[in-house]
Amino acid sequence: MRFAAYRDSAGTGLAISRDGAAFRGLRDTDPGFPGHLDTLLAMDGAAFGAACDALSAGAPVELDAVTLLPPVGRPGKIICVGLNYIDHSAESGFKQPDYPTLFGRFTSSLIGHGAPLLRPTVSEQFDYEGELVAIIGRGGRHIPRERALEHVFGYSIFNDGSVRDYQFKAPQWTMGKNFDDTGPFGPVVVTADELPPGAAGLRIETRLNGAVVQSSNTDALVFDVPTLVAIISEAITLEPGDLLVTGTPSGVGAARKPPLWMKPGDVCEVEIERIGVLRNPVADAA
Amino acid sequence: MRFAAYRDSAGTGLAISRDGAAFRGLRDTDPGFPGHLDTLLAMDGAAFGAACDALSAGAPVELDAVTLLPPVGRPGKIICVGLNYIDHSAESGFKQPDYPTLFGRFTSSLIGHGAPLLRPTVSEQFDYEGELVAIIGRGGRHIPRERALEHVFGYSIFNDGSVRDYQFKAPQWTMGKNFDDTGPFGPVVVTADELPPGAAGLRIETRLNGAVVQSSNTDALVFDVPTLVAIISEAITLEPGDLLVTGTPSGVGAARKPPLWMKPGDVCEVEIERIGVLRNPVADAA
Repeated sequence: MRFAAYRDSAGTGLAISRDGAAFRGLRDTDPGFPGHLDTLLAMDGAAFGAACDALSAGAPVELDAVTLLPPVGRPGKIICVGLNYIDHSAESGFKQPDYPTLFGRFTSSLIGHGAPLLRPTVSEQFDYEGELVAIIGRGGRHIPRERALEHVFGYSIFNDGSVRDYQFKAPQWTMGKNFDDTGPFGPVVVTADELPPGAAGLRIETRLNGAVVQSSNTDALVFDVPTLVAIISEAITLEPGDLLVTGTPSGVGAARKPPLWMKPGDVCEVEIERIGVLRNPVADAA
Repeated sequence: MRFAAYRDSAGTGLAISRDGAAFRGLRDTDPGFPGHLDTLLAMDGAAFGAACDALSAGAPVELDAVTLLPPVGRPGKIICVGLNYIDHSAESGFKQPDYPTLFGRFTSSLIGHGAPLLRPTVSEQFDYEGELVAIIGRGGRHIPRERALEHVFGYSIFNDGSVRDYQFKAPQWTMGKNFDDTGPFGPVVVTADELPPGAAGLRIETRLNGAVVQSSNTDALVFDVPTLVAIISEAITLEPGDLLVTGTPSGVGAARKPPLWMKPGDVCEVEIERIGVLRNPVADAA
């Protein structure tokens, strides 16, 4: 299944596509609206099934004709993994850590497919980072690696837009990773059953104005999805709707000579095989 | 005013104390319950006033007789500031940064006053960090420093419990700052009007088993509350209920020779003048 969160002139809604069929859905103002994806993820199996049935009985939703929103609007946690592709760690001047490098994003930085990536007024060092994101379905703590994938609901695409000078103004990267409107997420969530286990072996590519700037494969993750679930849940209770943003391969703008920054008028796309293309124009923040 | 979130056998509730009077409040199962503090913070002035009146008309709440909860249960953001007292930066081996060092905590790490700080099974390096926390009332972006305090609803106390070996396993501190049940927050929120501007000039002290281990004053903050609001909101939209956890002074266990770690049976207290005492026993995680 695929899920898309959207907004049109009548409200916000959730659409579903089953077995490759066209998207159908309901708005929060429609009778029988079962809730946004955040809500569905916390349901038990029977309630979730009924919610999917309700959405499937809704009206057709043409994704190109609506505004897409982040598929999970208020994730409880957005756990980002840095330095998770060896070639990116090397280009960034870091020794590859043997433990996951985690930082947090706040929901205030999220935007949907199609929304403008906003280059802040205070910096020109606006960089892209194409990434696979895993969405937690069933929560848990101390989840063993061999059962980790039972806790992953599905996968999507993230562009971990980074303001590089702000990222390195202090020993922690948080500020440079959290400017408003720098975290595109979407366009859809694809349920885990439609992808290889752990979303492994998928081509991931970032394009800036059509030119390929990052090209790798999720097989190259240093810490793959089941390993991340196991290691993170050793410390932290995972909850439905939490996001694990798994890291970016080499090719970021900061590592190029000269550096390549996103600027107004650009279009940045992140494509992951069998998931889709996350496309966002770049504009200046007001 | 002071607010306390609590739970007793009849449900969870919110209590208020006005002008030094005893706490009164309502549970979420009581008629007229206006919502938890997260909800009140997002209200406009009239609705907020009505909510306070409703709570004041509730039953007496004896704080010692109920279980206190984190005063804001699901903050949208928990923005922690590291290296914000010069003497702590020095004892930690960091050059004092001239820009705030921020990291994120997740809500899954929060506990209330009196709940056990849980030492994880995987580490013995369990450290305390007493801190002042500012609670955002009115949201905003690009907030000028001179208007910053209009956006702060009140203040409370935080113990930024840190698992030191996990904090330094990778270049970002997130894991060591986010173990479940390591973030005591409370006991109450005191509104800004009852404290000096920016909660400046308040004595802050941490005691482990009654022995003073940290003793400083909020005047020693490198980046004070209005400066933090201004700098953070240059990048990030602040929202009602967001927490700014402002950093810890010197005296942490990791910097002592030999190191001083919290262990089961200990009691850790953080006291801030005119706010109160946040007290938590230490226990082993199951």
